[in-house]
Amino acid sequence: MSEIHTLTRELQKKNNSKIVLLVADGLGGLPLKPGGKTELETAKTPNLDALAQRGSLGLSTPVIPGITPGSGPGHLGLFGYDPLEFQIGRGVLEALGIDFDLGPDDVAIRGNFCTLDEKGLISDRRAGRISSEKAAPLCEKLNKIKIPGVEVFVQHVKEYRLVVVFRGPGLGGNVDDTDPQATGVAPLDPVARDEGSKKTIEVAKEFLKQAREVLKNDQPANFLMLRGIAKRPPIPTFEEVYGTKAGAIAVYPMYRGLARLVSMDVLDAGQTIGDQCARLKQAWNDYDFFFMHFKYTDSTGEDGNFEAKVKRIEELDAAMPAITELNPTVLIVTGDHSTPSKMKSHSWHPVPTMIVADTCRFDGSKEFGETACRFGGLGQFPAKYLMPLVLAHADRLEKFGA
Amino acid sequence: MSEIHTLTRELQKKNNSKIVLLVADGLGGLPLKPGGKTELETAKTPNLDALAQRGSLGLSTPVIPGITPGSGPGHLGLFGYDPLEFQIGRGVLEALGIDFDLGPDDVAIRGNFCTLDEKGLISDRRAGRISSEKAAPLCEKLNKIKIPGVEVFVQHVKEYRLVVVFRGPGLGGNVDDTDPQATGVAPLDPVARDEGSKKTIEVAKEFLKQAREVLKNDQPANFLMLRGIAKRPPIPTFEEVYGTKAGAIAVYPMYRGLARLVSMDVLDAGQTIGDQCARLKQAWNDYDFFFMHFKYTDSTGEDGNFEAKVKRIEELDAAMPAITELNPTVLIVTGDHSTPSKMKSHSWHPVPTMIVADTCRFDGSKEFGETACRFGGLGQFPAKYLMPLVLAHADRLEKFGA
Repeated sequence: MSEIHTLTRELQKKNNSKIVLLVADGLGGLPLKPGGKTELETAKTPNLDALAQRGSLGLSTPVIPGITPGSGPGHLGLFGYDPLEFQIGRGVLEALGIDFDLGPDDVAIRGNFCTLDEKGLISDRRAGRISSEKAAPLCEKLNKIKIPGVEVFVQHVKEYRLVVVFRGPGLGGNVDDTDPQATGVAPLDPVARDEGSKKTIEVAKEFLKQAREVLKNDQPANFLMLRGIAKRPPIPTFEEVYGTKAGAIAVYPMYRGLARLVSMDVLDAGQTIGDQCARLKQAWNDYDFFFMHFKYTDSTGEDGNFEAKVKRIEELDAAMPAITELNPTVLIVTGDHSTPSKMKSHSWHPVPTMIVADTCRFDGSKEFGETACRFGGLGQFPAKYLMPLVLAHADRLEKFGA
Repeated sequence: MSEIHTLTRELQKKNNSKIVLLVADGLGGLPLKPGGKTELETAKTPNLDALAQRGSLGLSTPVIPGITPGSGPGHLGLFGYDPLEFQIGRGVLEALGIDFDLGPDDVAIRGNFCTLDEKGLISDRRAGRISSEKAAPLCEKLNKIKIPGVEVFVQHVKEYRLVVVFRGPGLGGNVDDTDPQATGVAPLDPVARDEGSKKTIEVAKEFLKQAREVLKNDQPANFLMLRGIAKRPPIPTFEEVYGTKAGAIAVYPMYRGLARLVSMDVLDAGQTIGDQCARLKQAWNDYDFFFMHFKYTDSTGEDGNFEAKVKRIEELDAAMPAITELNPTVLIVTGDHSTPSKMKSHSWHPVPTMIVADTCRFDGSKEFGETACRFGGLGQFPAKYLMPLVLAHADRLEKFGA
């Protein structure tokens, strides 16, 4: 068990405090050239700047220096679960990403439609990047496959990608991909990497046998390959480790899924940050802890659109009064990682982070931005330590030792 | 396995980037009095200062705060090998320090000539600090000792110090010193601390028996004692853990030896920093990663000569254009530890470090120095995290998790 959870389990206490964790996905950025400003520093953010003046700022490192996290490790770190200890398989993330409610007995698999030639060899590993319109009905056909003793779910994701879930007792998740990562060869048979996954192999073989029959006349997607076969790892619940009842208000399925992974309640978030704020207000008395997720700081960064990211940050800033008027005991504004538009991708750069609470050692920051955070009172710290800090500011942790 | 190498093994990817790690030995310093400047801050370093303006600065901690490293732990940390996990025995370092190419079957020992009285008791533990001129021929005599089943190498180091290496299968390195650290007593017999080192004991006893005979008429060095008996620990290669082909350009044998320890190629470095830069240019297409070592910032610090250290830093600065004209993707300037001339010794003070790359979150630094580094974007960080950061800037790491 992580040292963080050993402590928070032992020291947690209840009160009426309210905590809001606002995650602006990929918030951190880079200046385009030496002497320049980042996206966050360029944006006009009067509300965030006002918060900075009554908070403590810092830079959080999602995993370890130099390591660029995906959304999974990025969020687990913010939730206080060491991302090196709790590693989430690709199939599980894919299932979470389509809002599939994955249980502890489920094996989740990322499927790729592919094209086999007349000899049964792979001629296209992505079935000619088949359109979603064509692929979705194929998933519905596959979803009708029956295998004795287990439930089978097949759901479409996008284009040639789908999710397959086997649900049933005794299914291990330690199975190799059937994708040989090459064309001109046959798909691989599923192979178990441990004794506990042998039953999964039998199920997977039967599934693939039936799928071959179901798809045989569907060009170009006349078969599929299985990848990232994995189970949800055992993860203690958020309530168990922190003693807080948590609700997640996230528009995108991946983030609802990550919240579900730590057993937060997933609330209807609507479509916009305005909808999310309205939901927050409505649910205010029902939870101790709210996780709110804002996607567009990441997607504009991934697009390499500096100006668009700036605008999205300003959009987020405009929503802040709707949160602050609820007077949360502790408000956190941070990101799960950086997504500099200069790089068009996630990056390892530490993430601007702000904690606003009456118990802050106010650090005299004038604004919320990477430079201010560099000089802030939180210093540079591993993201996994955010949760104990936040619980402390909410007076939800007893003293350690006498 | 360290968490760093677990990650870098899994995430490493190849590209054409070039990385230069320039280590100015003992770079960090101290001001002579409150309000003063360090050696690095006193030196006129227009080239390093220009680099600082397009990089990220920070202070690296070689081991943990307060721990002063030797050259071994200092460099291992910079190479991304946790110096607490990979500990190098004194005999091994002594052998590396004379450019001895130590293999995995070798037991390396630091020898000290000593003087025995007529009763066989130690009267001088350093044989009257015998001159190198007198000691070297004695080493040549000892080098002729033959022991069945093993190879024996004896090489002179300096004055009363020598290196003894036993090479052969089944030789453990867990053996106590034979130096009792006192005079008026007999040298100790070698004692094995584990079962695997019993054969080493037999070899050592036979060696000492023959050595006593060989040296019996050589006053004052009529015997020797064995210290720091050790094997090279198993260390994964640099290429294995990072996927980079690395060349070392170091003038002094100790640093070539440390590079060899992590399986870098050791290139002919010539005698001066100019020679080293010429070699760098010549080898530019043959390697992904270059380790360059500059010794004189340490030796002038050890001499307690503030002004000489300043001049050596200026000499290094003058060499920078020969490196930067090659346009490395990532350039790192750092030290393996501090050697403040005020202290005339290595110290624990964190080390000025600069990473220069297009993906830096430029931190607005105006110059390269301890104070600028304290306010830099890298913050204070353990030296072992330098490598993942550097690989990230070179775009040589995949994203962790999805």
